[in-house]
Amino acid sequence: MKVQYTLLHKDQHTNARYGSLKTNHGTYETPMFMPVGTLANVKTLVPEELKAMHSAIILSNTYHLWLRPGEDVVQKAGGLHAFMHYDGPILTDSGGFQVFSLAKNKKKDITEEGVHFKSHLDGRNLLLTPEKSMEIQNKLDSDIAMSFDECIPYPADYEYTKKSTERTIRWAKRGKDAFHNEKQSLFGIVQGGAYQDLRHYSAKETVKIGFDGYAIGGTSVGEGKDVMYQMIDDAILYLPEEKPRYLMGVGDPVDILEGVERGVDLFDCVLPTRIARHGNAFTKNGKINIKNAKYKEDFTPLEDGCDCYTCQNYTKAYVRHLITANESLGGRLLSIHNIRFLIRLVEEIRIAIQEDRFTEYKKEFIDRYTKKEGD
Amino acid sequence: MKVQYTLLHKDQHTNARYGSLKTNHGTYETPMFMPVGTLANVKTLVPEELKAMHSAIILSNTYHLWLRPGEDVVQKAGGLHAFMHYDGPILTDSGGFQVFSLAKNKKKDITEEGVHFKSHLDGRNLLLTPEKSMEIQNKLDSDIAMSFDECIPYPADYEYTKKSTERTIRWAKRGKDAFHNEKQSLFGIVQGGAYQDLRHYSAKETVKIGFDGYAIGGTSVGEGKDVMYQMIDDAILYLPEEKPRYLMGVGDPVDILEGVERGVDLFDCVLPTRIARHGNAFTKNGKINIKNAKYKEDFTPLEDGCDCYTCQNYTKAYVRHLITANESLGGRLLSIHNIRFLIRLVEEIRIAIQEDRFTEYKKEFIDRYTKKEGD
Repeated sequence: MKVQYTLLHKDQHTNARYGSLKTNHGTYETPMFMPVGTLANVKTLVPEELKAMHSAIILSNTYHLWLRPGEDVVQKAGGLHAFMHYDGPILTDSGGFQVFSLAKNKKKDITEEGVHFKSHLDGRNLLLTPEKSMEIQNKLDSDIAMSFDECIPYPADYEYTKKSTERTIRWAKRGKDAFHNEKQSLFGIVQGGAYQDLRHYSAKETVKIGFDGYAIGGTSVGEGKDVMYQMIDDAILYLPEEKPRYLMGVGDPVDILEGVERGVDLFDCVLPTRIARHGNAFTKNGKINIKNAKYKEDFTPLEDGCDCYTCQNYTKAYVRHLITANESLGGRLLSIHNIRFLIRLVEEIRIAIQEDRFTEYKKEFIDRYTKKEGD
Repeated sequence: MKVQYTLLHKDQHTNARYGSLKTNHGTYETPMFMPVGTLANVKTLVPEELKAMHSAIILSNTYHLWLRPGEDVVQKAGGLHAFMHYDGPILTDSGGFQVFSLAKNKKKDITEEGVHFKSHLDGRNLLLTPEKSMEIQNKLDSDIAMSFDECIPYPADYEYTKKSTERTIRWAKRGKDAFHNEKQSLFGIVQGGAYQDLRHYSAKETVKIGFDGYAIGGTSVGEGKDVMYQMIDDAILYLPEEKPRYLMGVGDPVDILEGVERGVDLFDCVLPTRIARHGNAFTKNGKINIKNAKYKEDFTPLEDGCDCYTCQNYTKAYVRHLITANESLGGRLLSIHNIRFLIRLVEEIRIAIQEDRFTEYKKEFIDRYTKKEGD
């Protein structure tokens, strides 16, 4: 079954929308934050913990699973859900972003066929094409697969961006033709760099091909916040209302709010688990770093009022002790809190949209979050 | 309340004994395996997971907690149970073993007063004495504290061993005098190296001082297995039947069986979590290393018939993938299996003792375990 998006309520004052997404593994409300499980696990966590945080879709990386353990192993295991013991929905990316960001020595050769590059693990020569990406994702058997695209760096000149954007559209067509998994959905990706006309062009052409959902790619690559928000606006203008919209790689709380305001439904980011390993915790008063000496004898939870497992059972002093002593349980407890923080954020956003007070909610949240009383 | 040991059944053919230990945090059956939570956490795991494995006492390290986060922080948190969110019983060691094994450059100066050494973290000069060890443990507020002793290396000459053993007895007396926590129990430790007369002497003198339980120290320091088993025999001969007996630092399945046969009730070891991080799993057919290529497409559990969370939900292929990709969840899943393996071992041992078939059980287990069909 292909995913089905239902628009349930549009905010009266912005483009924010509340909806539901039906998948082969349950129906979930949007806007939604999707935790990232790069290597078929959300680092340090088990599925039961993700479900206790009310996770819905989680994301896993085609590039990483292609290299380790290999898509054939996952297929023989019965697909990614069985392999990693997660019975909620899973989205796989196309591998494109990792090819561009992780390739050994960043050396890569982009041709019409695909991308030639060297493995970041052992340097061996690899070729990823739209067809290969679809083949791998079909075998991984995720609920949602992504088109193979080039994530254009920022800044990039107009000529290159145009050439790349047109090629990505050709790749999207080839990928759709090569896609063979009836149970799986396929999302297209809007590129076009920071050029408004190319974003419009990319969105219109991608929609013409026809996908089960649309992603906005190419953001969070070094452009400023204002440029990023404009890129979202430019992409979303031509996306159909009846399909889900996914802003790739975005997980900063303020950016999630800005994305929702512009009509985005899905977000993913490694941020909550990555900052956890460095001792950072999201709070409504801004990020805090638990290594700070002032938490040494702070026997309160990471965040007052948080319902996560960590905040219900542990103190800042204990988490600080684990992180400063390099105990991986510290990263695990912070990951639980940070993921739950972003899931709570979208839960609150969904209620605010339904009550037509998204603008107030956003302002209050950002005012408090950016004041950084925490640190 | 001091711990209370009740001898419930003695094996008809060996010195193996089945009993119960009443603590401030519940009553539990013995023989018992105690997982090690060095820095106020059993590496990668939370207390709920330990309880799901039927853990009882867990061990934490006085030396490590003294250095980080400091015993005063733990005391202000309400003691170790509150700090780490474990409501089962906790045993703290004296710090002696770590002082001898971890001191910076192994440089230490043992005087009658105590041990002068350098922190393994920052090299600063520290002094641990029997009084200081008791003060720290009293503040940590564990259920069971251990006497401060010298763990004699192997081999050691008779004169040195005698001198050290006598000093450990004086330290034990001083520790008992300095001990001020009515809720906490204090165990003595039998030393004496590998010399039978010194083991006898140490046991008798330690019992004369009078403790709530007795540990057998100084094993697993490089002596052979036969020497170790003799050391246990020599120590246990003079220990009172009505008190619990604890063989420190022993967690190899075969050694647990040999210890039980000689009348030991309590065991602890970092082995199950340490080998987990290197990809090793206990099975009844011997240890296996999950990195072995033959497990790449092995979609069976780590061990057939195991009731642990890992074996109930994951395959060898998945755990192998996590370990080879350096994902810490791999160590977590293996730790769960390995700890549960040792807890299942003592569960089976307890039943075998009650049914007077410990000797058969031991033989069958060792035959199968040492055949190593696994790898």
